[in-house]
Amino acid sequence: MRKQYFKQEEGAPEPLRCTVERVARFEEVDALGIVWHGRYPSYFEDGRVLLGEKYGIGYLDLYRQEIIAPIKQMHVDYQRPLQFSDPFTIEAILHWSDAVRLNHEFILRNAAGEITTTGYTVQLLMDPEHNVLMVPPPFYQEFRERWQAGELT
Amino acid sequence: MRKQYFKQEEGAPEPLRCTVERVARFEEVDALGIVWHGRYPSYFEDGRVLLGEKYGIGYLDLYRQEIIAPIKQMHVDYQRPLQFSDPFTIEAILHWSDAVRLNHEFILRNAAGEITTTGYTVQLLMDPEHNVLMVPPPFYQEFRERWQAGELT
Amino acid sequence: MRKQYFKQEEGAPEPLRCTVERVARFEEVDALGIVWHGRYPSYFEDGRVLLGEKYGIGYLDLYRQEIIAPIKQMHVDYQRPLQFSDPFTIEAILHWSDAVRLNHEFILRNAAGEITTTGYTVQLLMDPEHNVLMVPPPFYQEFRERWQAGELT
Amino acid sequence: MRKQYFKQEEGAPEPLRCTVERVARFEEVDALGIVWHGRYPSYFEDGRVLLGEKYGIGYLDLYRQEIIAPIKQMHVDYQRPLQFSDPFTIEAILHWSDAVRLNHEFILRNAAGEITTTGYTVQLLMDPEHNVLMVPPPFYQEFRERWQAGELT
Repeated sequence: MRKQYFKQEEGAPEPLRCTVERVARFEEVDALGIVWHGRYPSYFEDGRVLLGEKYGIGYLDLYRQEIIAPIKQMHVDYQRPLQFSDPFTIEAILHWSDAVRLNHEFILRNAAGEITTTGYTVQLLMDPEHNVLMVPPPFYQEFRERWQAGELT
Repeated sequence: MRKQYFKQEEGAPEPLRCTVERVARFEEVDALGIVWHGRYPSYFEDGRVLLGEKYGIGYLDLYRQEIIAPIKQMHVDYQRPLQFSDPFTIEAILHWSDAVRLNHEFILRNAAGEITTTGYTVQLLMDPEHNVLMVPPPFYQEFRERWQAGELT
Repeated sequence: MRKQYFKQEEGAPEPLRCTVERVARFEEVDALGIVWHGRYPSYFEDGRVLLGEKYGIGYLDLYRQEIIAPIKQMHVDYQRPLQFSDPFTIEAILHWSDAVRLNHEFILRNAAGEITTTGYTVQLLMDPEHNVLMVPPPFYQEFRERWQAGELT
Repeated sequence: MRKQYFKQEEGAPEPLRCTVERVARFEEVDALGIVWHGRYPSYFEDGRVLLGEKYGIGYLDLYRQEIIAPIKQMHVDYQRPLQFSDPFTIEAILHWSDAVRLNHEFILRNAAGEITTTGYTVQLLMDPEHNVLMVPPPFYQEFRERWQAGELT
């Protein structure tokens, strides 16, 4: 059974999702013939970047708003290894949070549809002086209202 | 206050420790001018490798015993960023476990001695056919006995 | 004008080609906001791997034949930088050689079709004991004959 | 015999040199058990960074002068492989050039003192608008005069 990394808050809208297709690259594989455990943050990022672009809260969207969103926490659970040239998918799932933070869950699956790896990242929003934003900035508030209204799919 | 990643088991010997000195490399820094969050698994590994070599349970020691120790779980908490050419230390701490697993904690500190990043990894021991070892193999049992006896420092 | 990395040998068949589409990833960009120069070997490899798979001389094909093909030489000419999220293409071009070696040329182009980077790699074929093969092994000889006969496109 | 990557210009002062000690890290090794060819640019950079710091022309020195020095060309010749935990040295050698460019040669040697890898990089100097500098900026001119006068060792 899959771990529940984030508790669904009451009255929260459904999570946002998107999926990236990938193939394990030669340089990602270690001397044991499996993808080195330290490559998975880059796989997670592939999913997070695509989801951000899809919903207008990507790195470049934040940059234009003069906001940065550093990673505060990252977690990975390794269940099955991947080998060179294995195709796999990365599903990124953005969970609603009442706080000003981005809670992403990630699920990697192999060609057989089996879960190989899961994990999550937590990001805070900050202004250029690295002050944590406690109140959502306008563009982010708007994104949340559209999400809550069911306009994002 | 630092998180307690692993509960100290009753009657367990003191954790084993060692520290690596490093400098943040140019290629480790991202477009925001800080070490990219996905580089920290390699910093953790620098600490884990040195500790393994010091106590005879390193990658090459395991290899000679035909044992592999894949990472099953990894966690990182990011507290302060590192920038290009910042010196820092990586303290690796091996916590005792009654189970056949390697529980490493990591603490990174900057030149001012401030904690920048903490985290942990959990490894299982497996035979070459990827069967999880439930009973400690002889060389590992011996290592544990010496640790318990206070012979490792 | 593009450099001519490999001289076309007389009577040699046309080079083999294939093209990969990519987007510059966040972790590939350095503190100056451009793709770090040391990431391009992995871009070249993306092209080389695809061409190898397409024509049956990929890493896994060689592995099955108990042959390795280590890189002996690599060269990169950087003309225009790439930035985060820039789409680009990697064209891999395998040039004919009478010697037992793989001579790949690489051409990267941005979305405007401008050449951003070019380069090449040279690989020798070796047996598992790291002896350089001076005579083409059967599977490779067959590949060359089909290439020479114009059967590969 | 070692290749001569840069021709010694007439009347030019002796090259500047420095050496870094390193150990091949687990994540740098590929599925064939040797350091992946694409890691060597980072080894070259370790040498280049140290030499730059030693002589006051490092990345941060340039940054303070509002100058960037992008890599225009990189070349690597692989002679002997490195394996996990192999100690090796990186010698960086800055060759004199009458043009405004940084011509670095690199020589890697294993514990037996054998050359494992050689190569070079060529950098141009640019202002923040990416205009190539044809005339040496004052701080760089001063560096060259001290070098020519034999004051740098």
